[in-house]
Amino acid sequence: MAFEQELKTKSAYIEDLLKEYMPKEEGYQNTIFKAMNYSLSAGGKRLRPILTLEASKIVGGNEKDAIPFAMAIEMIHTYSLIHDDLPAMDNDDFRRGKPTNHKVFGDGMATLAGDALLNYAFEIMLRESIGKKNPDIRLKAIYEIARGAGIYGMIGGQVVDIESEDKAIEKEKLDFIHMNKTAAMIVGCMRAGAIIGYASEEDLQNITRYAKNIGLAFQIVDDILDIVGDTKILGKPVGSDLENHKSTYPALIGLDESRKVARNLIEEAKDSIKKLSGDTSFLEGLADYIISRDH
Amino acid sequence: MAFEQELKTKSAYIEDLLKEYMPKEEGYQNTIFKAMNYSLSAGGKRLRPILTLEASKIVGGNEKDAIPFAMAIEMIHTYSLIHDDLPAMDNDDFRRGKPTNHKVFGDGMATLAGDALLNYAFEIMLRESIGKKNPDIRLKAIYEIARGAGIYGMIGGQVVDIESEDKAIEKEKLDFIHMNKTAAMIVGCMRAGAIIGYASEEDLQNITRYAKNIGLAFQIVDDILDIVGDTKILGKPVGSDLENHKSTYPALIGLDESRKVARNLIEEAKDSIKKLSGDTSFLEGLADYIISRDH
Repeated sequence: MAFEQELKTKSAYIEDLLKEYMPKEEGYQNTIFKAMNYSLSAGGKRLRPILTLEASKIVGGNEKDAIPFAMAIEMIHTYSLIHDDLPAMDNDDFRRGKPTNHKVFGDGMATLAGDALLNYAFEIMLRESIGKKNPDIRLKAIYEIARGAGIYGMIGGQVVDIESEDKAIEKEKLDFIHMNKTAAMIVGCMRAGAIIGYASEEDLQNITRYAKNIGLAFQIVDDILDIVGDTKILGKPVGSDLENHKSTYPALIGLDESRKVARNLIEEAKDSIKKLSGDTSFLEGLADYIISRDH
Repeated sequence: MAFEQELKTKSAYIEDLLKEYMPKEEGYQNTIFKAMNYSLSAGGKRLRPILTLEASKIVGGNEKDAIPFAMAIEMIHTYSLIHDDLPAMDNDDFRRGKPTNHKVFGDGMATLAGDALLNYAFEIMLRESIGKKNPDIRLKAIYEIARGAGIYGMIGGQVVDIESEDKAIEKEKLDFIHMNKTAAMIVGCMRAGAIIGYASEEDLQNITRYAKNIGLAFQIVDDILDIVGDTKILGKPVGSDLENHKSTYPALIGLDESRKVARNLIEEAKDSIKKLSGDTSFLEGLADYIISRDH
């Protein structure tokens, strides 16, 4: 498929960029660099940084300006996975077929590696913004990332997610979890890319709607895949969400209805992004891909 | 003592400011707000935010500009304590006479509360910088904090500190630990305050030297207090560093020599800060206080 090939090319491009942005493994504190880079190198589709670059490109932005933000976002995403996997949280031994960070470096070092990645994300965005044109725009773009990752975004969603285990929760709360745990960061990374590319207010609104919708759909599809997916393809045990009594869309409104909701979100996302004047084919393809992915 | 009274007044002022900056305890994710605020309210002398405001004031800066940075620094300091206390790290049950965060909220929530405070620190600094004059100066000030808190600062020092337990380490490595674990953040918070106050390059250099020296002295005195202090006054078991086989100054160069090194650092710090034209009496008093404190 043409889209999947394009996604692979973009993922590989992000991999190469990440290598440049990873801390050099030298000095007394070398272990923390190794722990950070271990998880940064663990693969994945790099969707978030791709979306940052794409949001910037589609509004006519300069890619060079958007790259530090894309890198920072992948670091924040990686930190959240490292902390999520800790025994104190989900207690997962494997991620993407590899031992999780704490399994290799120990719980303490994995905690610090997560902290380090979150902090380093801001270091990168700030360092590469100092002395550049339009610092106010850069402050705004960094703020979008910070907001998306924080207590009114990703962390907020994680907290409610954890507290909702083993409980029957209402749909409003489940939507809060999905919106914040996953979508808020997708929104943050696309808004940051758009803002750094000097998006018009109208374009920014349409990008925001696209990001929110694919973020929500992504989380619903993730829930669906946990029930119907295949362990080998997913790289994590199928049914682990059910085992943990996690509140999911299929558990609350059923599998078919969940699929319908996801499809509607994707159609709305595509309608929103089509309103932009740039080349939206990749982002449209990505929306379709999210609903069709099986790995 | 006049200085101690002034310090108390300043601490109380920071306490009041912090209350304004703490997240409101409402919404689905309320538990994370409670966990953050529990540790933010746990007291302490609030040295770091006081130093930020003082560095700004001494170079003629506007206090209003420096306040968000002072608040952010206390949040970063608090996050580092929460994560330090986790079972995966130091496994401490009490801090300042109160149960540690994870003892009240559980290990997972305490991990997230730390993450949340670090992230929120950046949210505050960014949010209150957007739309203000001289955004480039603000980017620089935020970067100082990020750098001081990260892998080339506080986290870097923590990593080497953890790895050096149960080991005989050389003085160079111990100095690296002290410089990064404690002094880097003191340097970061004073430089941020000075930069936001439009310090001259010369003033900034002198403030940096002062901050580095009192930071190192602070850590050495901390090591000394762990051996000679009193449990009730310190609020933590005396000798806990020795029990953990932590590498400390007294363990490496002896108690008397450690005291001498700390005294020299303090004298140099005072010499540096006296070169500024502003009122340096509080910062001189603080340098003396660090070496004389017993609680």
